[in-house]
Amino acid sequence: MRRYAILAPGHFAVDAKTAHGVVAYGNDATVAVIDPACAGRTVREVLPHLPSDAPIVATIDEALTFSPTALLIGTAPKGGALPAAWRRDILRAIDAGLEIVSGLHDMLGDDAEFAAAAQRRGTTIWDVRKPPQQPLFTGRAYDVAAPTLLMVGNDCAVGKMTVALELVRAARERNVRAEFVPTGQTGIMIAGWGIAIDRVIADFAAGATEAIVLEAASRKPDLIVVEGQGAINHPAYAPVTLALMYGATPDALVLVCDPTLREIESYGTPTLGYRELIRIHEALLATVKPARVAGIALNTKRMSADAAAAEIERARAETLLPVDDVVRNGPHAFYDAIAPFLRKTKRCAV
Amino acid sequence: MRRYAILAPGHFAVDAKTAHGVVAYGNDATVAVIDPACAGRTVREVLPHLPSDAPIVATIDEALTFSPTALLIGTAPKGGALPAAWRRDILRAIDAGLEIVSGLHDMLGDDAEFAAAAQRRGTTIWDVRKPPQQPLFTGRAYDVAAPTLLMVGNDCAVGKMTVALELVRAARERNVRAEFVPTGQTGIMIAGWGIAIDRVIADFAAGATEAIVLEAASRKPDLIVVEGQGAINHPAYAPVTLALMYGATPDALVLVCDPTLREIESYGTPTLGYRELIRIHEALLATVKPARVAGIALNTKRMSADAAAAEIERARAETLLPVDDVVRNGPHAFYDAIAPFLRKTKRCAV
Repeated sequence: MRRYAILAPGHFAVDAKTAHGVVAYGNDATVAVIDPACAGRTVREVLPHLPSDAPIVATIDEALTFSPTALLIGTAPKGGALPAAWRRDILRAIDAGLEIVSGLHDMLGDDAEFAAAAQRRGTTIWDVRKPPQQPLFTGRAYDVAAPTLLMVGNDCAVGKMTVALELVRAARERNVRAEFVPTGQTGIMIAGWGIAIDRVIADFAAGATEAIVLEAASRKPDLIVVEGQGAINHPAYAPVTLALMYGATPDALVLVCDPTLREIESYGTPTLGYRELIRIHEALLATVKPARVAGIALNTKRMSADAAAAEIERARAETLLPVDDVVRNGPHAFYDAIAPFLRKTKRCAV
Repeated sequence: MRRYAILAPGHFAVDAKTAHGVVAYGNDATVAVIDPACAGRTVREVLPHLPSDAPIVATIDEALTFSPTALLIGTAPKGGALPAAWRRDILRAIDAGLEIVSGLHDMLGDDAEFAAAAQRRGTTIWDVRKPPQQPLFTGRAYDVAAPTLLMVGNDCAVGKMTVALELVRAARERNVRAEFVPTGQTGIMIAGWGIAIDRVIADFAAGATEAIVLEAASRKPDLIVVEGQGAINHPAYAPVTLALMYGATPDALVLVCDPTLREIESYGTPTLGYRELIRIHEALLATVKPARVAGIALNTKRMSADAAAAEIERARAETLLPVDDVVRNGPHAFYDAIAPFLRKTKRCAV
């Protein structure tokens, strides 16, 4: 088990999605977070929903006093390039013998300076986004015995991974052997395996998705829950979304939406309503292997309790589907509401 | 200008799409084709629609007697890997001082043996599929002044590139300055520039498409015609199709269909009807930047003249759109039929 120092300068309280995911759901421990913007407080003091009393410190040297075994790059800048200012901190961590764990597009292990430093110090660099040899889609996933549930959503960063993990937790508490299939860097860091589909060559993105679903299926689970990526109307990332939709060969979808969003982040493309999202996902899947939306998981963290409850009711009335916020209200009621639909898709123990 | 020997052993008469495209539309000359299966005849004798009397020979050594300056790998095996038997021929060509031009997924220039041989002999290897540094999609293509026309279709290999090239030819004959935007290896070999979008990392596939549309737009054309890839319900390649749809920011689509197909090649997924294809492409584009199907280009090469004419009429009646086979009947009538629609999308000289 790793002891993580998490590097997220200026971002921890804001948008360090990878850092938050690993703290909330990871199998490894977090012993310190590096972010001068909130140094002096603990993780829980800054983000009350995260179950960790790890200290937030201003520098890598302070973090090293908590005996970490690995430095995790805890936030992914737009486009994935490595900010120059982080280079010094990463080299300091390598010199201190830490493993480097990165989800950036830039492969740190391919950087001559980092690679040489790591080799000299006898430590390793894990670029979690580095895809393995890619297979073409084969169609073998059509024969997977367990129902497969894929997350889709109304934008990036709306909580698709969180909903997947919460549903896996709910399933396991009901003695349903659920497998989480990680498709992005944070999910991979949490689960310790998977493929970052956004990093795979476009021709092989569906095939790589199929390969990890088959890997999960080889463990003979009762239920497979696939982390989602992007959004079907995202001008840049929709190809990744579609690769997951066809490659995972899902039996059902969960639609994850932040109802406060009006535009796809940084593109100005209007987000879609619940019914339009359902229609377009189901229409696409109907052309290859039909699958229906089983329910809607709302992310209401930007809303008051009253507004959240009203939006949940509104979405239910509009779609006649199970709707809930699995973070605010826990995943159990929502899981129980969608389980009958999953049971219908394949003979199974869900 | 190159003098090509085209390597397509066992495939030239069958499915050597790259070879056929370069012979039919390329700026470079073809001096010989290597394919023991039809050696002794000429290109035109084997494929009457190809305007070339180049000889077909059985071996690389025979091809070398026609003084080629480059060896073109004329067919792309499924998945793109290099058949071991071709290695010897490629090394022979390098030793004879030929440039190697390849559209395979495997980068021949990254192969230690080929790279060393080419360096030793002082010749070069052009891997046309090798993408340049990839940009994220920015949205700058929304401001392109010329109408942009994208090809989509009911499967791979139905003639999307051919239709694009025929429409460019028809436009130019009307003094409309049309730019062809190559998105696949054959188109790149024909035009001498472009990006193989299927080879781009999924996150950047829309951005790479936008980049080549912007490159075409920088030449101030009257019309931009973008080569299509895959199909929107292709289980493996649809992400590439969607990257073109969002990344090219088209103003109109041409739907290219082989009406004899019932299934997506090698996957068994049913092909879609004209109206369903129109609906699903337009529905997706409506969520980002709306664009309509301007017309349908049928590939009727597997049909009799009577059956082709009947199918063209049927498609017209079903969709109320311009429909034609631009290879069988030439591109002019079809171009003139869709030009008024293109003119409406943007103020332009089309």
